Amino acid sequence: MEPFENISPLDGRYIGPDETMRKRMSPYLSEAASIRYQLKVEVALLETMAEFGICSASVPESARKAAEDITAKEVFEEERRIGHNVRALVNSMRKRMPENERGFVHLFATSNDILDTSRTLAFRDFASEILIPDLIDLVSVISGKAREYASVRQIGRTHGQYAEPITFGYALSLYVSRIGGRTVALERAREDLRGKLSGAVGAHNALALHDPMNPAIFERKHLERLGLKASDTQVSTQVIEPEAMADFVFQGILAMSAMANLADDMRHLIRSEIGEVKIVDGATRVGSSTMPHKVNPVAFENVKSLWKAFAPRIVTVLMDQISEHQRDLTNSASSRFLGEILAAVDYAARRLGGAMKKIQPDEEALGRHLAACRDQIVAEPLYVILALSGHPDGYGKVRSLLKDARESESTLLQAAGKDEEAAKILEGIPPHQAKVIDDPTSYTGDAAERALHTCDEWEKTLGLLR
Amino acid sequence: MEPFENISPLDGRYIGPDETMRKRMSPYLSEAASIRYQLKVEVALLETMAEFGICSASVPESARKAAEDITAKEVFEEERRIGHNVRALVNSMRKRMPENERGFVHLFATSNDILDTSRTLAFRDFASEILIPDLIDLVSVISGKAREYASVRQIGRTHGQYAEPITFGYALSLYVSRIGGRTVALERAREDLRGKLSGAVGAHNALALHDPMNPAIFERKHLERLGLKASDTQVSTQVIEPEAMADFVFQGILAMSAMANLADDMRHLIRSEIGEVKIVDGATRVGSSTMPHKVNPVAFENVKSLWKAFAPRIVTVLMDQISEHQRDLTNSASSRFLGEILAAVDYAARRLGGAMKKIQPDEEALGRHLAACRDQIVAEPLYVILALSGHPDGYGKVRSLLKDARESESTLLQAAGKDEEAAKILEGIPPHQAKVIDDPTSYTGDAAERALHTCDEWEKTLGLLR
Amino acid sequence: MEPFENISPLDGRYIGPDETMRKRMSPYLSEAASIRYQLKVEVALLETMAEFGICSASVPESARKAAEDITAKEVFEEERRIGHNVRALVNSMRKRMPENERGFVHLFATSNDILDTSRTLAFRDFASEILIPDLIDLVSVISGKAREYASVRQIGRTHGQYAEPITFGYALSLYVSRIGGRTVALERAREDLRGKLSGAVGAHNALALHDPMNPAIFERKHLERLGLKASDTQVSTQVIEPEAMADFVFQGILAMSAMANLADDMRHLIRSEIGEVKIVDGATRVGSSTMPHKVNPVAFENVKSLWKAFAPRIVTVLMDQISEHQRDLTNSASSRFLGEILAAVDYAARRLGGAMKKIQPDEEALGRHLAACRDQIVAEPLYVILALSGHPDGYGKVRSLLKDARESESTLLQAAGKDEEAAKILEGIPPHQAKVIDDPTSYTGDAAERALHTCDEWEKTLGLLR
Amino acid sequence: MEPFENISPLDGRYIGPDETMRKRMSPYLSEAASIRYQLKVEVALLETMAEFGICSASVPESARKAAEDITAKEVFEEERRIGHNVRALVNSMRKRMPENERGFVHLFATSNDILDTSRTLAFRDFASEILIPDLIDLVSVISGKAREYASVRQIGRTHGQYAEPITFGYALSLYVSRIGGRTVALERAREDLRGKLSGAVGAHNALALHDPMNPAIFERKHLERLGLKASDTQVSTQVIEPEAMADFVFQGILAMSAMANLADDMRHLIRSEIGEVKIVDGATRVGSSTMPHKVNPVAFENVKSLWKAFAPRIVTVLMDQISEHQRDLTNSASSRFLGEILAAVDYAARRLGGAMKKIQPDEEALGRHLAACRDQIVAEPLYVILALSGHPDGYGKVRSLLKDARESESTLLQAAGKDEEAAKILEGIPPHQAKVIDDPTSYTGDAAERALHTCDEWEKTLGLLR
Repeated sequence: MEPFENISPLDGRYIGPDETMRKRMSPYLSEAASIRYQLKVEVALLETMAEFGICSASVPESARKAAEDITAKEVFEEERRIGHNVRALVNSMRKRMPENERGFVHLFATSNDILDTSRTLAFRDFASEILIPDLIDLVSVISGKAREYASVRQIGRTHGQYAEPITFGYALSLYVSRIGGRTVALERAREDLRGKLSGAVGAHNALALHDPMNPAIFERKHLERLGLKASDTQVSTQVIEPEAMADFVFQGILAMSAMANLADDMRHLIRSEIGEVKIVDGATRVGSSTMPHKVNPVAFENVKSLWKAFAPRIVTVLMDQISEHQRDLTNSASSRFLGEILAAVDYAARRLGGAMKKIQPDEEALGRHLAACRDQIVAEPLYVILALSGHPDGYGKVRSLLKDARESESTLLQAAGKDEEAAKILEGIPPHQAKVIDDPTSYTGDAAERALHTCDEWEKTLGLLR
Repeated sequence: MEPFENISPLDGRYIGPDETMRKRMSPYLSEAASIRYQLKVEVALLETMAEFGICSASVPESARKAAEDITAKEVFEEERRIGHNVRALVNSMRKRMPENERGFVHLFATSNDILDTSRTLAFRDFASEILIPDLIDLVSVISGKAREYASVRQIGRTHGQYAEPITFGYALSLYVSRIGGRTVALERAREDLRGKLSGAVGAHNALALHDPMNPAIFERKHLERLGLKASDTQVSTQVIEPEAMADFVFQGILAMSAMANLADDMRHLIRSEIGEVKIVDGATRVGSSTMPHKVNPVAFENVKSLWKAFAPRIVTVLMDQISEHQRDLTNSASSRFLGEILAAVDYAARRLGGAMKKIQPDEEALGRHLAACRDQIVAEPLYVILALSGHPDGYGKVRSLLKDARESESTLLQAAGKDEEAAKILEGIPPHQAKVIDDPTSYTGDAAERALHTCDEWEKTLGLLR
Repeated sequence: MEPFENISPLDGRYIGPDETMRKRMSPYLSEAASIRYQLKVEVALLETMAEFGICSASVPESARKAAEDITAKEVFEEERRIGHNVRALVNSMRKRMPENERGFVHLFATSNDILDTSRTLAFRDFASEILIPDLIDLVSVISGKAREYASVRQIGRTHGQYAEPITFGYALSLYVSRIGGRTVALERAREDLRGKLSGAVGAHNALALHDPMNPAIFERKHLERLGLKASDTQVSTQVIEPEAMADFVFQGILAMSAMANLADDMRHLIRSEIGEVKIVDGATRVGSSTMPHKVNPVAFENVKSLWKAFAPRIVTVLMDQISEHQRDLTNSASSRFLGEILAAVDYAARRLGGAMKKIQPDEEALGRHLAACRDQIVAEPLYVILALSGHPDGYGKVRSLLKDARESESTLLQAAGKDEEAAKILEGIPPHQAKVIDDPTSYTGDAAERALHTCDEWEKTLGLLR
Repeated sequence: MEPFENISPLDGRYIGPDETMRKRMSPYLSEAASIRYQLKVEVALLETMAEFGICSASVPESARKAAEDITAKEVFEEERRIGHNVRALVNSMRKRMPENERGFVHLFATSNDILDTSRTLAFRDFASEILIPDLIDLVSVISGKAREYASVRQIGRTHGQYAEPITFGYALSLYVSRIGGRTVALERAREDLRGKLSGAVGAHNALALHDPMNPAIFERKHLERLGLKASDTQVSTQVIEPEAMADFVFQGILAMSAMANLADDMRHLIRSEIGEVKIVDGATRVGSSTMPHKVNPVAFENVKSLWKAFAPRIVTVLMDQISEHQRDLTNSASSRFLGEILAAVDYAARRLGGAMKKIQPDEEALGRHLAACRDQIVAEPLYVILALSGHPDGYGKVRSLLKDARESESTLLQAAGKDEEAAKILEGIPPHQAKVIDDPTSYTGDAAERALHTCDEWEKTLGLLR
């Protein structure tokens, strides 16, 4: 089957036909992956049984060998025949094992002990082996750029209007902080994902047949073997408390929101009229099918667009918080789509990282815009300086000077120079204030230092996550 | 590549590995399908050029032959090389055509003239050839059941509590109406989908080079050839006005909501304690991996669950209503996922239709529940009858009779019999009222007639859509 | 109580403290309004009873008088006492009526016959008296501007990059079409809203006690009196089929999306670097608390922001499509919030209309940007002209000319002039093509004509809705 | 103004007219509250200035007195006049202060330094003083019930079908864990909310005029005074990094989802056919306007319905993660609606708590359902016991015994008794297994112990939060 026959753009366009992408994601997020992770959980369960003396050590050994041999196709066909996915898996294991060992397979477990736990495992592995490293790489790219341009002045914009100056690196460092922060939050949520082995209605019913005194210990040992925890007090229904998974997915989506914001910022800075950012790209791309002169910010558009496609899916996650009684199974199909969200977050991180490597500020454009609003910038520092110098209404004073300036068609500073009160104050100000009045584009606060500090801190923090 | 390596559950589980499903959907909704539809639009454009005398008739002919030969894989690889999807398509066409004909390919068009129009075409065909027939089939199954059980009495439930009686067929006929209504609405929305050939910024700029007097006529002719309309006054940006597509997708989702509601009703009627609906299924299904006695309403659960996964995606559609200026391209990736929604609606319709064929009311359970609330049912007709007979406060009277009944541990009718005022009124009531008092479970209003009427009307209406 | 004590920003900020706004909306969308509309439905029900000879004409007359006297506060307090809202309303009516007339009040009806029908009435009136006129006013403002600037050239933008020219009026006319289209769609959805009088489980159970042969006729007559229709075949549960209301709300939200898009376009055109749109406003506004020089596009920001707050609520509407059996009442509170959505759509329409009145294109900026990309614009017409003149690869030719131009640091036209093949073709082209080559900023297709045509058509169509 | 004139059901129905509710919420979440919190932040800023020696101690003192006097109405009217909300607030302060002190008001700050920080403060206070205590009270009610009924057996349900037994208290204890867990998560998110004083573009531009060496120290001191933190490395745009607020709101919504789930469970257990839960209520409620016999689970329906109305609003929160450059202000209106979400979560918690106090299990119904599936329950323990006793295929064996039972119209245990192999095994099983075989309704695992353990743990944890 060609990937192009697929329905999902993930499988038919973004990931499926791209071998690098597919090989990164498929081992964790595909149907085949979910079978492999389920087998892992079934084998671990038998290992725990052996540890507790319920079966001999040969049973998990046989199961492990059987598992190596089982394909997704085989399980799928067995499921078609019997109409039950986990039982199909179990049958595939059992038929490869000696007759006297078969009875232990899946013992104590309900299907969802396997499904919930294996999904947790797959997502945990995907996060630690793929997604978090990719997010760290992305932060690292942004951080590199933020350092490089920490002192490159840029006009800040609010309401889409020139406001006060910052530095280009400072603006980028905010994304070091935001995406860095989400990476840490995702790691924390990842560590908090839970597994279960509490049976069909959650009360360790079957395990209590083995050990009536403390059935939950078995669950704990089994999950520890997989590197997982159960819910805090080991209560559940047929499914794990859904909140930990919701937290995990939400952090992924928040990371994507921050990426979409960065993508939007880049898109706008690349706009024809702004041009403060350039894409430096050796490739011979076709700009547009009818306008050959254009080079478009497609990677940034793609990241924003994927965010549109995936952010609303958090509502599905919220819907899946609710399940009737010990479980109503209307979360069964919907929760299968969670992996798509993770795939999209990772795809976006990689695509954004690739695009960010190629950006470069255009210092000419940066300078031009700063120059264009040089006289407007000065209003704020002027008012603050007047106030700091003891003027009772610096703000009002500046408003009235602005009016003077408009009327006399001069600049604000010229108007201030002509105004006795203001002129007198400005004469006596300290050098660091005089510098700002002299060159308002230097009114960048602690942007440069703070950009570097932010990069330092997050590189350290994320370095610990590697 | 095995479908199980896919990321999306659509491709890895629900549609991909199921040949019947895949063969129904892939020709309209896959990446490969989108290439084929794009080729169709490019060829039609050349045909219109030939009609207008811009090129000779041999050009569309060569293009048609070229198109037959082109594979998704080839276009994908060319896109990888040059970084532009529609230009890749055009290159694939051009290289198969005589040199002197190549220049006409894609002339006048911007990429999105092809992409928007071909998506409209693909969705329109999918709706008319697959989705609407499947919805009609579904309605037809429900309608058959509604007719069959039009007179089978059932207690109606509000607040999850016994309310007043209806018939089982009546309850089903509501879904004939709701899903039937959405089928008609979907067909109407389908007919309203639009194509375009107005160029990169929507103002027929290129076409006006050919015919400065009325460039829009060319667009109209081209779209007519494809069976499509342009926007009402042929204004656009680079993209078609997005509202028609939003309407279309919304109707699909509303159809799915109605299906999810029916699925929910069935799920609840199948509940152990209610058991008014049974699944009659010859198949040897495994009920549960640890509880072999259970037969579960998995198809109904699946439909509800898919609704959870897809309904929130309408927000993506709303986000894609907004695009900066003549287009910002952040709807590019997100709109590629629209086909998934249609696939899910169709999958749900087929799955629900299959499940509905197997349901059967359990008359014993229906009767048991009616019997259980027989005495409660009577409160409403009693109050209405009292009022119709001129009692100034029928409602209050029944409340006080209910109190009497509770106190004397008798039924409401017994209390009414003992109450002079009530008894006197009841003596004189007409036969159709007496029948209800005598057998409150017959208090089903016009449920049976209306169920049949509803089936008649919608079968007629939908018959016209076939 | 001060409006500022309210929790909702609608009541505490946007509508509540603004008497004009509040007086427009509160009579349709408040709790007090819902009481008034419920009374209207109860009175109409008695009128229908009188028409059918069930009660004397004095009964609806007494009820009408009673209704005039009843306050929301009184009903609220009665509801608090007895715990049922519609019964509280009924009690408030009954106690004002002669004892022998009381029994007819609310006869045949279940609470939701009143609630659903009165909500339909209130929304229908709000739409026809407030929202649709406000939308028409908005379209009319945009149309006025579109006409005024129909021929004012502007560079079109895709990917945020200069693309090909349009006219400013043409860009606006798209919103005439989009918002005009939604106004018509909203009116259509409004006309399709339904009422009901089919009782607690929808099967006209109570009405059949009066007339066993055709109970639905009574429902139809009652609704006609209110100017409403029932569902197509008069089937329902306790609630009306929810799809018509979903359509209505969706159209409101789509109208808001189109408004948000226009707001976004204005925001961006007002950006410091673009400045193609100016806000001409006499008012003495404070631009920013610390940057007194700024005048910000607050109305446009507000419209976009309200869209963010309200668009996702469509998911609640979808959730409310699903209700268990004859109704589960979990749509009771949520559907009360529907009125907020309508209020927000109307508020946005008025605010946007007000803001659009004040905008004005800055022809200097428009000209500057066109000049800046004059040489880039020519690539597309050049390639089309080459192709129309029979060149076998106009597109490729232009790409190669662009390369020449870059290498020789000349313009594309200069490069074309130096290229023998191109120069020869350009010599022979017709005047309308020559004009575009001569002044590429005139390459606006049929933008001007189409803008005017669009205004004509929609003014006519919407005129009919007034 | 009457609350009933409001548009929002929160203000017109649920909170506005209910004095208790309004007095709890309005001081934190209303427009008036936001003014008070803004004043608090402005005063704190002056206190910090005094601490740093920028102004004398009399300035914050005058400001504090001015603040006490200012009403929301006054600020609203000033805002109307000048078109800027924070400047209106500042004007209201200034005019009450001595002329020579006025210049310090709002110095260094941009509007959003006040708005963001004051919203954080208001939400933090609302959470700690109202919402978290209300959640703890709710958990406490549920915990009380979970303890009381820890050993009351109930059949667990999956797929809506009888599964295996649990205890009623165990099912409740899961909500102790889920809502308890969200309470802790909400408290953690609350503590992580951030304030800011970094100016119009986030780079402490104005503060650096005062102290060029370390402007961020001032911000830190100011926020500490309010009990708040800045972002980790004190980077920001005009707004605080939005992720902390998103986390906070998300935890509130997750808490509401868990409440909605509990409400759903209660609704279903109250269903006529199940009747395992009763509402014990002294009040004289009207059950239904036409069916006086019904008592409906309105509080539970209300909680679920509010969840439908508010859960999708998380998408607005996600949209507000994205803001162009240093801020685009399209999050201004939308973020004002965040307080509504908190109000709804709190309202739901109180309403659910009130309803849970009145519930009571019906032991007769519980027993009836357990009895009804007694023979089905035994399948799972039987298969586990067979397996634990060394049978190689316990699961298959039970399936074949079930077939025998069906064919001989006997029970599974009877079939097992007749089967030599099974009978032999059952003879030799230990007492705790024999007990389950003897009384399958005792097959409740560790439900009772775990319910109590869960209550113990969460009461301890939440006790620490009080």
